[in-house]
Amino acid sequence: MFDPVDHPHRRYNPLTGRWVLVSPHRAKRPWQGQMDAPVVEARPAHDPTCYLCAGNQRVSGDHNPDYKHTYVFGNDFAALLNDTPAPPDNQDPLFRASAARGLARVICFSPDHSKTLPELSLDDLGYVVNTWCEQVAELSGEWEWVQVFENKGAAMGCSNPHPHGQLWASNFLPTEVAAEDEHQAAWFAGHGTPMLLDYIQREQADGTRTVVETEHWIAVVPYWAAWPFETLLTPKAHVTHLDKLGAAQKQDLAVIIKKLTTRYDNLFNTSFPYSMGWHGAPSNALNDGAHWQLHAHFYPPLLRSASVRKFMVGYEMMAETQRDITPEQAAARLQQLSEVHYLQNEK
Amino acid sequence: MFDPVDHPHRRYNPLTGRWVLVSPHRAKRPWQGQMDAPVVEARPAHDPTCYLCAGNQRVSGDHNPDYKHTYVFGNDFAALLNDTPAPPDNQDPLFRASAARGLARVICFSPDHSKTLPELSLDDLGYVVNTWCEQVAELSGEWEWVQVFENKGAAMGCSNPHPHGQLWASNFLPTEVAAEDEHQAAWFAGHGTPMLLDYIQREQADGTRTVVETEHWIAVVPYWAAWPFETLLTPKAHVTHLDKLGAAQKQDLAVIIKKLTTRYDNLFNTSFPYSMGWHGAPSNALNDGAHWQLHAHFYPPLLRSASVRKFMVGYEMMAETQRDITPEQAAARLQQLSEVHYLQNEK
Ligand SMILES: O=P(O)(O)O[C@H]1O[C@H](CO)[C@@H](O)[C@H](O)[C@H]1O
Ligand SMILES: O=P(O)(O)O[C@H]1O[C@H](CO)[C@@H](O)[C@H](O)[C@H]1O
Repeated sequence: MFDPVDHPHRRYNPLTGRWVLVSPHRAKRPWQGQMDAPVVEARPAHDPTCYLCAGNQRVSGDHNPDYKHTYVFGNDFAALLNDTPAPPDNQDPLFRASAARGLARVICFSPDHSKTLPELSLDDLGYVVNTWCEQVAELSGEWEWVQVFENKGAAMGCSNPHPHGQLWASNFLPTEVAAEDEHQAAWFAGHGTPMLLDYIQREQADGTRTVVETEHWIAVVPYWAAWPFETLLTPKAHVTHLDKLGAAQKQDLAVIIKKLTTRYDNLFNTSFPYSMGWHGAPSNALNDGAHWQLHAHFYPPLLRSASVRKFMVGYEMMAETQRDITPEQAAARLQQLSEVHYLQNEK
Repeated sequence: MFDPVDHPHRRYNPLTGRWVLVSPHRAKRPWQGQMDAPVVEARPAHDPTCYLCAGNQRVSGDHNPDYKHTYVFGNDFAALLNDTPAPPDNQDPLFRASAARGLARVICFSPDHSKTLPELSLDDLGYVVNTWCEQVAELSGEWEWVQVFENKGAAMGCSNPHPHGQLWASNFLPTEVAAEDEHQAAWFAGHGTPMLLDYIQREQADGTRTVVETEHWIAVVPYWAAWPFETLLTPKAHVTHLDKLGAAQKQDLAVIIKKLTTRYDNLFNTSFPYSMGWHGAPSNALNDGAHWQLHAHFYPPLLRSASVRKFMVGYEMMAETQRDITPEQAAARLQQLSEVHYLQNEK
């Protein structure tokens, strides 16, 4: 008899068309590899050496204003530039290059250097949500794609602990997004409904993989999750794009982000590293992007503790993503946790 | 005027159909993020606590034999098992699971705990090559796919520094391999020649991205490389599979692996971490896999020094792989290096 908790199997990610190998019994092996040093330092609310703190000077020589909530500026080392010439037309299909124009911005979430998303007040989180929506609204006219994301924690390549995210806008649809666009369009053509809305309704009815549900939003460990405690966050109603959210949905987004990221921190009593990012209908999507359902992915690397992560390496890079606990086991762990932040608790 | 060293652009990977964003000017930004501790400890030739050393006991209770060259055994924590039941048929296309059966083995490259591939003699490397070929020959009859790979270094999730690799065999074609199979088959249908053979002939003629060339093999930083110092290693003649290599090609494979991995170690005077793995025609490939060209990928994470790596995080996970130096710049750096190992030099 098949038992998903004991028996290796594969699961299909209908957003990307890729499979994931699930090997739950592997979680039992002892770990003798690399341990990440958990970050324990208490940080000051203002750090004079931080280039994201209010009033401080950046590498560019610019001074940050004395901002009170969020603050957005052009990345001083942008990976995409507005005025880049296109590579010459090369007829060789094995050496294809194409133009990449765009811009990159940094979004400071708060002037308080010591806080991360779960530690911000709902009011302050509301400013973050509004900033995301405004930025996407401003840039979607000009650019085909606006990728809003956050790398949190040194383990996720974040080079400054000041609470901040980024956005990279481009004149092209990036590879991962193109895959999601294609799969959602095919589903819509076949079913007449947005794939992720159908999906999330089944998750809501089932409950096994639901981590948090609020009035307007739901966060689940998706059936096809790749990272151990990966979640998918999406509105419960059909919304195609960040700038289509209504006022109540925006307010409630602050609520669910606080709950979800608090559970994450409480899992291993640590500031939980992750990369997260928003996916919504591309600017020039067919039919106004009706096949799209707005969503955010959270990809956190930790597996066993604050210091032991999952490595996506040899087999995963060469062959197929592999996970060691089932999505249901991960969801059950996250479900049990408090929505009061562990540092709050200590006070 | 477009200059690939100054201007962001995208490049197309014809093996997977995915694009890579190249942002060479980004390499100029200062790095304030995580530094990996370079591994400097000298290791003994035999470590009594190592479960891979000859004669020692493993978690399973088994004792390793007193092996002299390579040693292969079943992974005590295999991600794939031979006797796993299949998940029940689920008609819901949003909750698709499928059977995953297989096996996993560990391949010790040498009894010498202190050595890595570039430090082995050509004779000893020859045993590694032969073991890879024998294993693949043995298992390809029974399994659809045999993934041979090596995770080297703690940064790549390797939990034991004893020189070793792995193989995972499965009853299914893993996702990455399926993508390469599809793209090579489409090329073959259109051109009548194997894609990678056409590609490598152009690289040979050009030379810009060639890192090492021997009588039978060539290693290049591919035009579409994702990792900073990624390389693609392939025979210069058409070979579909590891177990189709001739004696001279096998001998020469030891030579090019020694040269390539020595250059890697010499780049930052460190034991260079990477994940590498072999791709060849799947067991049940159409037309005996004539569209396939055998190749190995080397994916090393280091970017600037022995302690500063490239993070494939937020933008890369959500949108598109991004690199900071051009493949040509990476190849030029690797071309300049000696083929005498830096530790050898010191003696
Ligand atoms: O099998 P190992 O070396 O213990 O484990 C390592 O390689 C595996 C295959 O790439 C990965 O799934 C693991 O995350 C990694 O830590
Ligand atoms: O822009 P940052 O924070 O300096 O850099 C970080 O995020 C980028 C976008 O995901 C990555 O390309 C970098 O590798 C990572 O270190």
